[in-house]
Amino acid sequence: MRITRRETFNAAHRLFRPEWDDRKNLEVFGKCSNPRWHGHNYTLFVTVDGEVDPETGFVMNLKNLSRIIGTFVIEKLDHKNINLEVDFMKDRLASTENLAIGIWEQLETPIRKEGARLYCVKLVETEKNFVEHFGPNP
Amino acid sequence: MRITRRETFNAAHRLFRPEWDDRKNLEVFGKCSNPRWHGHNYTLFVTVDGEVDPETGFVMNLKNLSRIIGTFVIEKLDHKNINLEVDFMKDRLASTENLAIGIWEQLETPIRKEGARLYCVKLVETEKNFVEHFGPNP
Amino acid sequence: MRITRRETFNAAHRLFRPEWDDRKNLEVFGKCSNPRWHGHNYTLFVTVDGEVDPETGFVMNLKNLSRIIGTFVIEKLDHKNINLEVDFMKDRLASTENLAIGIWEQLETPIRKEGARLYCVKLVETEKNFVEHFGPNP
Amino acid sequence: MRITRRETFNAAHRLFRPEWDDRKNLEVFGKCSNPRWHGHNYTLFVTVDGEVDPETGFVMNLKNLSRIIGTFVIEKLDHKNINLEVDFMKDRLASTENLAIGIWEQLETPIRKEGARLYCVKLVETEKNFVEHFGPNP
Amino acid sequence: MRITRRETFNAAHRLFRPEWDDRKNLEVFGKCSNPRWHGHNYTLFVTVDGEVDPETGFVMNLKNLSRIIGTFVIEKLDHKNINLEVDFMKDRLASTENLAIGIWEQLETPIRKEGARLYCVKLVETEKNFVEHFGPNP
Amino acid sequence: MRITRRETFNAAHRLFRPEWDDRKNLEVFGKCSNPRWHGHNYTLFVTVDGEVDPETGFVMNLKNLSRIIGTFVIEKLDHKNINLEVDFMKDRLASTENLAIGIWEQLETPIRKEGARLYCVKLVETEKNFVEHFGPNP
Repeated sequence: MRITRRETFNAAHRLFRPEWDDRKNLEVFGKCSNPRWHGHNYTLFVTVDGEVDPETGFVMNLKNLSRIIGTFVIEKLDHKNINLEVDFMKDRLASTENLAIGIWEQLETPIRKEGARLYCVKLVETEKNFVEHFGPNP
Repeated sequence: MRITRRETFNAAHRLFRPEWDDRKNLEVFGKCSNPRWHGHNYTLFVTVDGEVDPETGFVMNLKNLSRIIGTFVIEKLDHKNINLEVDFMKDRLASTENLAIGIWEQLETPIRKEGARLYCVKLVETEKNFVEHFGPNP
Repeated sequence: MRITRRETFNAAHRLFRPEWDDRKNLEVFGKCSNPRWHGHNYTLFVTVDGEVDPETGFVMNLKNLSRIIGTFVIEKLDHKNINLEVDFMKDRLASTENLAIGIWEQLETPIRKEGARLYCVKLVETEKNFVEHFGPNP
Repeated sequence: MRITRRETFNAAHRLFRPEWDDRKNLEVFGKCSNPRWHGHNYTLFVTVDGEVDPETGFVMNLKNLSRIIGTFVIEKLDHKNINLEVDFMKDRLASTENLAIGIWEQLETPIRKEGARLYCVKLVETEKNFVEHFGPNP
Repeated sequence: MRITRRETFNAAHRLFRPEWDDRKNLEVFGKCSNPRWHGHNYTLFVTVDGEVDPETGFVMNLKNLSRIIGTFVIEKLDHKNINLEVDFMKDRLASTENLAIGIWEQLETPIRKEGARLYCVKLVETEKNFVEHFGPNP
Repeated sequence: MRITRRETFNAAHRLFRPEWDDRKNLEVFGKCSNPRWHGHNYTLFVTVDGEVDPETGFVMNLKNLSRIIGTFVIEKLDHKNINLEVDFMKDRLASTENLAIGIWEQLETPIRKEGARLYCVKLVETEKNFVEHFGPNP
């Protein structure tokens, strides 16, 4: 059984490699490399799986899942500049893929402490694209 | 190949354990334990998988899938009180997880009789949470 | 210029007239008259209009609008039984139309005190129906 | 008869008044005043009204409407910083209201040249708020 | 007070004038002039306005509104070819505008007979465009 | 890691077997067998999976994925008659399942040439049904 919680945040970012010049960044990242930033309304779906607790009927209490996502992800990302202000994205290219990896790393331990298992981080950047991360390979 | 049918129903429910007092129910289930009920527009996605029939081009005729969902699930749940009026939820805590399990049990046999295999019951309770049930472990 | 805030709440209700018998209630209100309740995820759109304040660029600060809707509407309706627990719906048939009227009456004065003017209460009951109330005729 | 075209763009912005200090900006604009920017997926609905041309069956050819919106609005806003890079937003607080006014000014003349009349600019900033601008008062 | 009912239908159509040659049709109507047809999932919003009946709490019973839309519009359009098979679109260019006019003409009288007043026919052709028709000018 | 691109197209089709008479086609395919066609707004989700390239932060550059989908799928299907005009659907019943298989065959090689792996073709025909194809069994 899997349960999923949906949360949203708004943030600015740009895609670029500092060791590349503007032309190379533009060639690879297109408009997303704009040095003056752009931004998105991100939608985040966090899926955990586990057994249903016979006492509560829950895989995990959504209040706890929501609180964890709020503390470890939304507060750090909402209305922020992903490249400049988010500790877990430091030295990482601010692609949707890398952001999903960063969010996974933030959530895995606190969710495990609640007795559940993080299964998937789905991150929707625009209505035309999203990524799904199922964790690092063992 | 998997095909999915989407259906909707509206129902009332509450989350509580009769052997717990109100304080304990409120502590665990929050506002969802309100003794005077609340309700939702549930959205149900039923996924079956199988081979494509070369004659019809279908994994399963959606008319039949829709009829089965209507008879075994929607008619029993739509505009009903899940705790009080739904036979397959008797003695079960009316969580989204348990409701998905109950719906799975309702659908598995009639879908198998049509030559298809139930793959997933996805139940969306609000725009912020949903569950996916892939059947009991063997 | 009009600005709109979207909020959601979940509630139980039934449609019936106490002076009618069950058959008459069923005839007029159909499944919505079920004595054991059903419920919905309601989506509420509150629209105010006014001039843009040159200092803030706002018709009305959304923080204030959201706080007002939260205090006067969402807290009273969310996870509640509309027929039994909502003061401003007392002695009113719990139709979507009447609920929109009740919400209007709750919001008009506090929004006016903020210097804005309530323009429309739109209330979506299911994905197949909604109502829009533009206030009482003068 | 009114026809509406929907377009999208992504952009960064912040809400602040340069003559206010950070504390005042934070008090009025909240997280939206973050000096390092945040951003949104904006959704724009442009509505024109007019008579149906008996020859084409159109109020206005959507190809032309889409081209006008693309040239005068989307190219100037998409993947841009609204505060720093958008000519028609210069010296304007980058609120959704002011952005809708700016978009109206961009579109009104080219749409009139096509023989149609701009009726409404609706700009959705997040799933929780949008504005509608119907033009300046005469 | 306005209430709105949402219905859907799927249909094929093409945009063309028989007295124009293919080149002219292609120039004006683009890909929509394809002689071998294309199609859409149309979404129809029918809005009626009126006073709230104090007995039922309804502007109009949605069961009746839905039945009227079903009989006079959906049955005639669903899974049909708009150019070839729909009586009320005979000799009319199958644009979204003209289809909205045709739907208005179908619905106005039967809705009036129920004591309500048709206010708007909104017809969504794709996620990028829709039309709204408010009736003929008197 | 999986990334998904969403694209849309509009097309006409009908479901029928030429060797069956009209009655048999109607019995199996219902309204979808209408000889004069009907149509849909199809929504296509193409999912590829792979490792994140440490240089770009991408599983696959969405510009390339979008270009491939455009060339091999959308240009061939958009505003077309699936039964009559689409080379890769020749001699195939135009069911959603078969269309997903055809789209898979179109996309697999060009995506592989970009160093990524096609994982899923999800095709949404109406708001009530979709299919997911994960490729042929080896």
